[in-house]
Amino acid sequence: MDKRQIVTFLSDYGLEDEFVGVCHGVMLRIAPSIHVVDVHHNILRQDIRHGAIVLQQSVRYLPDSVHLAVVDPSVGSGRRAVVLESGWGEIFVGPDNGVLIPAAKDAGGVRRAFEITDKRFMLTPVSRTFQGRDVFAPAAAHVANGVDPSAMGPEISADDLVQLEIPNAWVHDDHLHAEILQVDRFGNLQLNVGSGSLEDLGLLGNGKLEVRLEGHRLIVPMGATFADVGAGEFILIEDSYRHLSLAINKGDAAAQLRARAGSTAIVGPTTT
Amino acid sequence: MDKRQIVTFLSDYGLEDEFVGVCHGVMLRIAPSIHVVDVHHNILRQDIRHGAIVLQQSVRYLPDSVHLAVVDPSVGSGRRAVVLESGWGEIFVGPDNGVLIPAAKDAGGVRRAFEITDKRFMLTPVSRTFQGRDVFAPAAAHVANGVDPSAMGPEISADDLVQLEIPNAWVHDDHLHAEILQVDRFGNLQLNVGSGSLEDLGLLGNGKLEVRLEGHRLIVPMGATFADVGAGEFILIEDSYRHLSLAINKGDAAAQLRARAGSTAIVGPTTT
Amino acid sequence: MDKRQIVTFLSDYGLEDEFVGVCHGVMLRIAPSIHVVDVHHNILRQDIRHGAIVLQQSVRYLPDSVHLAVVDPSVGSGRRAVVLESGWGEIFVGPDNGVLIPAAKDAGGVRRAFEITDKRFMLTPVSRTFQGRDVFAPAAAHVANGVDPSAMGPEISADDLVQLEIPNAWVHDDHLHAEILQVDRFGNLQLNVGSGSLEDLGLLGNGKLEVRLEGHRLIVPMGATFADVGAGEFILIEDSYRHLSLAINKGDAAAQLRARAGSTAIVGPTTT
Repeated sequence: MDKRQIVTFLSDYGLEDEFVGVCHGVMLRIAPSIHVVDVHHNILRQDIRHGAIVLQQSVRYLPDSVHLAVVDPSVGSGRRAVVLESGWGEIFVGPDNGVLIPAAKDAGGVRRAFEITDKRFMLTPVSRTFQGRDVFAPAAAHVANGVDPSAMGPEISADDLVQLEIPNAWVHDDHLHAEILQVDRFGNLQLNVGSGSLEDLGLLGNGKLEVRLEGHRLIVPMGATFADVGAGEFILIEDSYRHLSLAINKGDAAAQLRARAGSTAIVGPTTT
Repeated sequence: MDKRQIVTFLSDYGLEDEFVGVCHGVMLRIAPSIHVVDVHHNILRQDIRHGAIVLQQSVRYLPDSVHLAVVDPSVGSGRRAVVLESGWGEIFVGPDNGVLIPAAKDAGGVRRAFEITDKRFMLTPVSRTFQGRDVFAPAAAHVANGVDPSAMGPEISADDLVQLEIPNAWVHDDHLHAEILQVDRFGNLQLNVGSGSLEDLGLLGNGKLEVRLEGHRLIVPMGATFADVGAGEFILIEDSYRHLSLAINKGDAAAQLRARAGSTAIVGPTTT
Repeated sequence: MDKRQIVTFLSDYGLEDEFVGVCHGVMLRIAPSIHVVDVHHNILRQDIRHGAIVLQQSVRYLPDSVHLAVVDPSVGSGRRAVVLESGWGEIFVGPDNGVLIPAAKDAGGVRRAFEITDKRFMLTPVSRTFQGRDVFAPAAAHVANGVDPSAMGPEISADDLVQLEIPNAWVHDDHLHAEILQVDRFGNLQLNVGSGSLEDLGLLGNGKLEVRLEGHRLIVPMGATFADVGAGEFILIEDSYRHLSLAINKGDAAAQLRARAGSTAIVGPTTT
């Protein structure tokens, strides 16, 4: 397998501990010439779905890499450690709990999958609680060094991997039942609504949409950019990942609406 | 243009999202041998002035670099994306909203300025909301690779750039009207007062100064280092950027005084 | 001295300021080919002991490096800046206040120690408040470049260094007087109890232990991994650094018990 220059690293370890730094050190000792790109370490604690969403959205901007993703609430139990190779050649390393799956699907599907069992590619003794350091980071670094994933352990059928799906909004009559996928630092609310869904409902050309969310009922103009409305006003835009996003120009929609990842929303035409 | 080994990166993206990591990945794919130095990603949200202050103060310690600074409340509107070359050869990449200006002035002034318009140096399609990823990071990486800034787009007169000034404290009778530029993690309050201003007022030799701030009136000794006073006591020192700074030895002046960036202060001789 | 490829960096600077980034830039200009691994920058403010604990525990995973550790409440006063070489060849750079000592002891003891006094290896003028930038980071980078520590300044006897000890739990009758060393992001409470102490008391085979902590009295099963108990239940495990750790499976023990680093605990057999 070709060497990879970039290892991307996503986790729920936070930056208040030495966990991330120790994993960096472990990887650089195995593969001294790689760049480790910290994608996100503030994934909500033990929230596999949040990790999967962020990995899926960022992987298209970080191609030709080894993607290390550790959100692992069942560390030390029977869950498997895996390396996946996608149809487009992306490599994913992490626990077999679904966190890698949406990203792998978007990168051409799972072409090959292997369980990580070979102790040559681990730090031993393997801790029961910090396998990012002892199992996942070493495996990612060895693969970046050119070790073929098949060397890590027995092959697994893609169908045997734990699945996880990030659902799209679903249509009911003339409106969408959506949910918030992510909230960014600015309080913008990313919905699981692509422009295709809006088009199907004939809502794409509408000047305004109605959004019901956390007890609020808002009539919100659609725009191309935040500045299409005045400061402090709500706007619906297509965000940088091409999802519908509810924002307040120069404001914080999440704080104002007390909304968060997982909040449900109903998006439809304005009723009169 | 010579290649640059270091790209410094300052933003208000925070570290709770994948924004910073994605920009790292975008740059490393364009310029695999650079080091990206994260100067600061917790610039107060959309606070151009805060970004400008931090960039100005840090650039002298990070010379011969490309400086990427993204604090961009008007992303997606008409504001221009620019590359500036300073008189001393520093390169600055960011929005044309003033965030780059104080740093560029301190680095020899703006020698050349170009708007970034050439799509060859962008990720396309360019998002309306995340131009750090699609416009600024790619431009910074291409310049680090040796692409001359003039290749990015049409030249702009330095006078046409949006200006921004970080004011120094002003003298009124025997005292200074100052403001807090920054608060660091330890709660030390950096004032916009250089030792020159104190000298002009004949205050530099004084053992103590009076500081009025957020309703407090303090008589504070001047010292060379925190340990010149006992634990828990106020002191005025020249900080590591040669600004007057109000601190509490082993304490948190910002918390105790409820002061923050932008708070005004009056600094003068002790009245009796 | 051989070149070192990795400089590890630990501090209490936080990531809300430009301090860490500026130190990175300073090091990379002196030693352009090194990797700087950020181990931890959220050491509790000015808490030398916390820094010492984290450095001690992480150094074994980051060998053959230069370890830069800056927790420095007495910056600018008379305290010395030092470079230590350990028996196993690890290099430590930081203030002479004990922060380096437990790690150096674990890495073979202090073989040689030098005060950093030679201005050739500093940024001048040296600030009285930010010696991470002006003294410690440059020294670390020069040593990584192959400069022998003896070039930095006069040799110091290891006995003359400021000492610091991380105490182990002490035995009293049939129980241990312990304290919490660290709390991680997940709220797991690391105790200063190794498996040896439990074995000596005949507690290692016990199914359950009694833990008294912050006014709580808990009967907690010992397990190998979090998942050995149900979600929301307490468990005692050997953590990834081989310390006894009190955790809640998929929960936050620190929040539930209002415990923090330094909290004392009594660990012993279950009383009936």
